[in-house]
Amino acid sequence: MDIRRCHFGSDALKEEQRFVDIQNVVQFVLEIDKLKAVLRKVKPVGESRYENTAEHSWQIAVFALSLAGTLRLAIDVSQVIAMLLVHDIGEIDAGDKFVFAQDGWEERKAAELRAVERIFSFAPDAMAKILLDLWKEFDAGETAEAKFAKAIDRSMPVLLNLSNGGGSWIENGVSYERVLARVGPEIENGCPELWAFVKRQLDSAREHGFFAPTHA
Amino acid sequence: MDIRRCHFGSDALKEEQRFVDIQNVVQFVLEIDKLKAVLRKVKPVGESRYENTAEHSWQIAVFALSLAGTLRLAIDVSQVIAMLLVHDIGEIDAGDKFVFAQDGWEERKAAELRAVERIFSFAPDAMAKILLDLWKEFDAGETAEAKFAKAIDRSMPVLLNLSNGGGSWIENGVSYERVLARVGPEIENGCPELWAFVKRQLDSAREHGFFAPTHA
Repeated sequence: MDIRRCHFGSDALKEEQRFVDIQNVVQFVLEIDKLKAVLRKVKPVGESRYENTAEHSWQIAVFALSLAGTLRLAIDVSQVIAMLLVHDIGEIDAGDKFVFAQDGWEERKAAELRAVERIFSFAPDAMAKILLDLWKEFDAGETAEAKFAKAIDRSMPVLLNLSNGGGSWIENGVSYERVLARVGPEIENGCPELWAFVKRQLDSAREHGFFAPTHA
Repeated sequence: MDIRRCHFGSDALKEEQRFVDIQNVVQFVLEIDKLKAVLRKVKPVGESRYENTAEHSWQIAVFALSLAGTLRLAIDVSQVIAMLLVHDIGEIDAGDKFVFAQDGWEERKAAELRAVERIFSFAPDAMAKILLDLWKEFDAGETAEAKFAKAIDRSMPVLLNLSNGGGSWIENGVSYERVLARVGPEIENGCPELWAFVKRQLDSAREHGFFAPTHA
């Protein structure tokens, strides 16, 4: 114990602890500022630059809020939003990984876990645990909320590519079949109504040449 | 009524309505993509570019989540986060307005209201109303949730400027006294503990020359 604190009464001690807690929250919030510099593979509609993970996280949170409310889903949308706000924070250390990368996903998951353990630990202990639990719930994908959150997260870049004439699919040689195989199951699993919509858009885009050719 | 619909049974009708609802949510989510191109006056820590309003909205949502939880505030943090996610969407039409601008705030508010009415109307009617109610609750600043949300929103650029050697204060000739007068009351009103922290940081920054000189 710091001997200087003996001069304070318990109120002053409590106030000092609160000050330290706020300082730790602020250090956490400034550490995650780095997510604004993590670039993804898709571009905002009509923009020449790539989007970053911070603005992506905002957009999917609003997407979840408005879609869950519209469909009157019997899930805790606040939990979904909280998960979406923090699920990509590990990219500060691990970077964005292209969803159509073929391998390295196990190592990737371990790297992201190490990253969020480091980053969340800036926050006071109790809050760090809450943040880590949100991250783990999303990652496990077992609750209805996590499944819906994953469906939203997977859909958003698809919707942006559909608005950008194919976007990252064309840039990276991704075929219609690979898109369906990679994003279809998670979107359908978390929100079948959304998948019905997205699938129809993908089929239409296929006719307009939004994908790389299918390999034999 | 569209006569073609008479060929469908009620399940098909319901499914078709749901498809249209999802389409409208998606159009809304793509319209707000434009917030990624609205630039603010502060920069991410250590970056040479200005931050945009989309990534700012994400950061303050995480800030609210972690601070309200840490301080165990008796408020609905989900409502705070929902407000913060949508409160700046009007900037898509109205642009960002520097918080230290001296006048034009009434016209500004009217312009932002027109903007969100236009933008939220992309979403299905019931959801558009929910979004507008969130925007209006934040704007009115009367509920404990709106006051806390405003405190978070006002603090974040202060914390970024403090991390950037003065940032937009130096760039725009803003004195220590103007910062205190402009952001102090709203932060203190919404979260006195946060203001106690921020005030101490501002006082320290003053000694390090983070502000423009005070005018006589």
